[in-house]
Amino acid sequence: MNIANLLFGRPLATSEGDAEQIGALKGVSVFGLDALASAAYGPEAALTLLIPLGVAGSRYILPITGVIIVLLVLVFLSYRQTLAAYPSGGGSYTVARRNLGTFPGLLAGAALLIDYTLDAAVGISAGIGALVSAFPRLHPHMLALCLAALLLLSIANLRGVRENGAIFLAPTYFFLGCMAVALVTGIARTLLAGGHPHAVIPPPLAPPAMTGVTAWILLRSFAGGCTALTGVEAVSNGVQSFKDDRVKNARMALGIIIAALAAMLAGVGFLVKVYHITAIDPNSPQYQSLLSLLLQAVSGRNWFYYAAIASILMVLTFSANTAFADFPRVCHFIAEDGYLPTSFTNRGRRLVYTEAIVVLTILTAILLTVFDGVTDRLIPLFAVGAFLAFTMSQAGMVAHWRRSDDPHKTGKMWINLVGCIATGLTVLVVIVAKFTEGAWITVVAIPTLLATMYAIHRHYVAVRREIVTTTPLDTAGQMSAIAVIPLTGWTRIGKDALCFAMSLADDIRALQVLEENTKDELRDHWSAYVEAPAMQSKMPVPQLITLKSPYRFVVRPIVDYVVKLANDKPDRRIVVIVPELLETHWYYYFLHTQRAAILKTRLLLQDNDRISVVDLPWHLKKK
Amino acid sequence: MNIANLLFGRPLATSEGDAEQIGALKGVSVFGLDALASAAYGPEAALTLLIPLGVAGSRYILPITGVIIVLLVLVFLSYRQTLAAYPSGGGSYTVARRNLGTFPGLLAGAALLIDYTLDAAVGISAGIGALVSAFPRLHPHMLALCLAALLLLSIANLRGVRENGAIFLAPTYFFLGCMAVALVTGIARTLLAGGHPHAVIPPPLAPPAMTGVTAWILLRSFAGGCTALTGVEAVSNGVQSFKDDRVKNARMALGIIIAALAAMLAGVGFLVKVYHITAIDPNSPQYQSLLSLLLQAVSGRNWFYYAAIASILMVLTFSANTAFADFPRVCHFIAEDGYLPTSFTNRGRRLVYTEAIVVLTILTAILLTVFDGVTDRLIPLFAVGAFLAFTMSQAGMVAHWRRSDDPHKTGKMWINLVGCIATGLTVLVVIVAKFTEGAWITVVAIPTLLATMYAIHRHYVAVRREIVTTTPLDTAGQMSAIAVIPLTGWTRIGKDALCFAMSLADDIRALQVLEENTKDELRDHWSAYVEAPAMQSKMPVPQLITLKSPYRFVVRPIVDYVVKLANDKPDRRIVVIVPELLETHWYYYFLHTQRAAILKTRLLLQDNDRISVVDLPWHLKKK
Repeated sequence: MNIANLLFGRPLATSEGDAEQIGALKGVSVFGLDALASAAYGPEAALTLLIPLGVAGSRYILPITGVIIVLLVLVFLSYRQTLAAYPSGGGSYTVARRNLGTFPGLLAGAALLIDYTLDAAVGISAGIGALVSAFPRLHPHMLALCLAALLLLSIANLRGVRENGAIFLAPTYFFLGCMAVALVTGIARTLLAGGHPHAVIPPPLAPPAMTGVTAWILLRSFAGGCTALTGVEAVSNGVQSFKDDRVKNARMALGIIIAALAAMLAGVGFLVKVYHITAIDPNSPQYQSLLSLLLQAVSGRNWFYYAAIASILMVLTFSANTAFADFPRVCHFIAEDGYLPTSFTNRGRRLVYTEAIVVLTILTAILLTVFDGVTDRLIPLFAVGAFLAFTMSQAGMVAHWRRSDDPHKTGKMWINLVGCIATGLTVLVVIVAKFTEGAWITVVAIPTLLATMYAIHRHYVAVRREIVTTTPLDTAGQMSAIAVIPLTGWTRIGKDALCFAMSLADDIRALQVLEENTKDELRDHWSAYVEAPAMQSKMPVPQLITLKSPYRFVVRPIVDYVVKLANDKPDRRIVVIVPELLETHWYYYFLHTQRAAILKTRLLLQDNDRISVVDLPWHLKKK
Repeated sequence: MNIANLLFGRPLATSEGDAEQIGALKGVSVFGLDALASAAYGPEAALTLLIPLGVAGSRYILPITGVIIVLLVLVFLSYRQTLAAYPSGGGSYTVARRNLGTFPGLLAGAALLIDYTLDAAVGISAGIGALVSAFPRLHPHMLALCLAALLLLSIANLRGVRENGAIFLAPTYFFLGCMAVALVTGIARTLLAGGHPHAVIPPPLAPPAMTGVTAWILLRSFAGGCTALTGVEAVSNGVQSFKDDRVKNARMALGIIIAALAAMLAGVGFLVKVYHITAIDPNSPQYQSLLSLLLQAVSGRNWFYYAAIASILMVLTFSANTAFADFPRVCHFIAEDGYLPTSFTNRGRRLVYTEAIVVLTILTAILLTVFDGVTDRLIPLFAVGAFLAFTMSQAGMVAHWRRSDDPHKTGKMWINLVGCIATGLTVLVVIVAKFTEGAWITVVAIPTLLATMYAIHRHYVAVRREIVTTTPLDTAGQMSAIAVIPLTGWTRIGKDALCFAMSLADDIRALQVLEENTKDELRDHWSAYVEAPAMQSKMPVPQLITLKSPYRFVVRPIVDYVVKLANDKPDRRIVVIVPELLETHWYYYFLHTQRAAILKTRLLLQDNDRISVVDLPWHLKKK
């Protein structure tokens, strides 16, 4: 327990669980981290797919970014409405389930769970990618660094990172500040240089073009860039954390997040074009992240560069924290509805959903390991889940407005409908464009997860149907018990068990298993040791039954006897009393057969509810 | 069970266990394999230590072999007497324990156990060494081949290699035949060539001498060569397996074994000298075993060479079987006396001492792995155990004769005394000569094993003292029980448990653990569900006790309550009834908390004999 206290902190009482209420600016850092951090990998994901176009690639980033920003604004408008409609928290799962029904809800839930897992993996790998850009010597240790960061995040969340804006406030605004300085400087220099700025450190020359531009390449690039939108839904999950007026504050936070994100995307797109920056293959040892190239071009490798890289690193790694905050919350909601193991609803010693955090850590570690910690390989799996959740959420809102009696409901419904269609189309584009590179994994994973959820629910329903009752105790339904006691010789332990059995039942059977041709010493003494004292005190007289074991098995003859007895006496309960020698030290267990444990297990696996087992412990004295 | 049947064979009844009685010739193959196989590594072990002498080394092998043969004859004379004195089996453990007492007996036992483990490892590694000599391509896979051979031997012995001479008869005599042909051919050619035979394939030139001859080198070489004597004690363990007249047959078998071994040692020593063969460093990729070099020199690499190598391979690998036959037997004897876990006395499904075979396999695998499967590295550890066992056995015989009323006892005692002193001196020589190379491991292992054996015995004595009794049942000592039932809501399972509790005790306490601020629904219904029907049928009325759990723990409050109850009521037995949901499929277990299992374990670990646990299974219906 001391190690647990040290690692995870002392247990927290349920009453200590009141969360802090936050304002709009803090809200930006608490719920916006993930969305804002997307600016660090979204444009890069788009640009990486333009590498085959050579230096021409940088030209196409601006129109693609334009489309993505339009999509972002649509999503913003939709979620603004969700915030107002679900002020106590309207994640995609809740909205879809309440308005569309179970299947759409679970579909949104499954998409979210997969999205968050990828979110954690991508946040960490992109953060470590930024670190490696600054210190290329670390390149061979990327995966190890990713797993170390994951472990730290996991422990921090098991300790319970309270939704304390203070932790995230400084890094968020520091990051935004750095990005603003870099982008404004770059744009200013461009304007001063008449549109053709001179890079302080020019980006590496693009490899020669291997192909001309095609709609397919642009589509794929767009699909990659869409990852910039991930994380936008976080505010809608946490409306209840805002100060009054909740909705106003939440809307303001969302507005700031979207505006900042849009500005960053636009700025990055513009500067990439004027500085002719192309992405570098992440598998190459010369790899640098896009933002690193851009910062170098604008300002060189000075203290500002390192400060900005540090802010990116922090924000990306912290952005994985959104997944750790929301994944358990979604699991909890789904588990409450009975579609995930109920243990996901239990809050652990630090008031967090321990089990979900552990599951997320394991899944993320697997993802990072399989994909070697390379962001670029994870990206293709990424946007499907996020956009599917967006789509389900908007679709839910459409249904919500249809039933609503809001006077402006038609207009509001149209906003959500447009959002729904736009994000729905994006899902299709992403699936098609990225299918072979990894989107197929998500496409397979979501139905698998759905099927599992339904199977879990069916099981819970069946169990509940079997055990739930509202009738009172039926005292007539009692069965009297037959006590069975395996004995090996005449010991204090066996005596104790016999006494206990005599208080329990009037039919008591002591069993001994003997190899063939062994002397039955117990029987010689049975009358003196047991029968006489039992009769004298007018108590039930235990009978001694000897089982022959030609194959030297000990447990099997006892189990066979008990099963036969249960079948012969269908109106009796069979209570098998297993005296168990308990040692003072674990290593003494090697000195005794573990037959008691084996016997208990075998008896309980007999699929007969009338066979129950009593553990009668005999603790050896400490020496 | 089907896989077990396939791998290990069907279970054998105890009555199927009658062993076959064998004659002297079969006895040679059953009990002599290990001793005869020693001829394959003993001389090589001696010669390897002479490598630093260069080509001069081969000159010294003959006198060293001479001393070893004298020792062999002394051991033979000693054991001849043991056979007669202990016709029902007189292993070193038995002889030393009966005549000298517990400590000398256990010392011999520990030495034997270590000897047999090394025996298995050396037999296998030397056999694989012979194979590798014939097929040098296999050299990199030596360790893997060793472990594969070990696994096969282990499975064969778990199936129960009955002491069936037939299996071993052919390889043994084929090996003896091959050796005889090779040695006689070599000696004949030497005589025809006037003492300077021409080698068909000359042995590789010896490396230049690095040092002159010293007593130290010769002593070490002698210590290495002594391994040729290992295995000689096997006949004395198995006298009871011989046909009548047992002692005569056993003595004849021992005589043949010793004579053949002595002849082989002498022949090999002579040919090594006249062909100027030196050993090859086993770590070199050019490694060939000594017998391989000798066979090549005498007859070239023809079919006979391969046949002889095959016979050596077989005999060496089979020789490890002696360890598998005798190690479990020694464990059984020591365990019967209470100095090893009693489970070593249980015969498994195939009437063999399964556990000891498994332990031997694991120990041998560790040895082979640590020493990379190289015979030469194992040899220094080897002779200490064997010769210590010889010495203890002879010393026991000396004590035996002193107490005996045999008319010729003085002469017999002297024979054993001389044997005892000779083998005792050899132990000292081997320890000193090989201390730093590995003999220290044996020197450390034997006292460690002895200390463990004594600790085991102390524990068994303490346990027996605590539990053994010869007084009859004390019906006055009965304690009436308080039944405790943890409930979660009102379910069929809980109802079942309450009914059972009411048949068991008159003080029944249903416990429910609630988080703070949770509605206590069960209490609202308690009177209707439980109290009313219980009172109506005039049965004990269970009380409902609610435990608040501010930290959301479930198991801990129950355990705390039960412990407190046990302390408050020192004259009552506390029976905790744990209803346990048992699933139809293992994977459903993830869907339920394993609190029942945790609760049981925690309760049994409370070190309170009055707290017992009833497992009340509820098997979910198969769907």
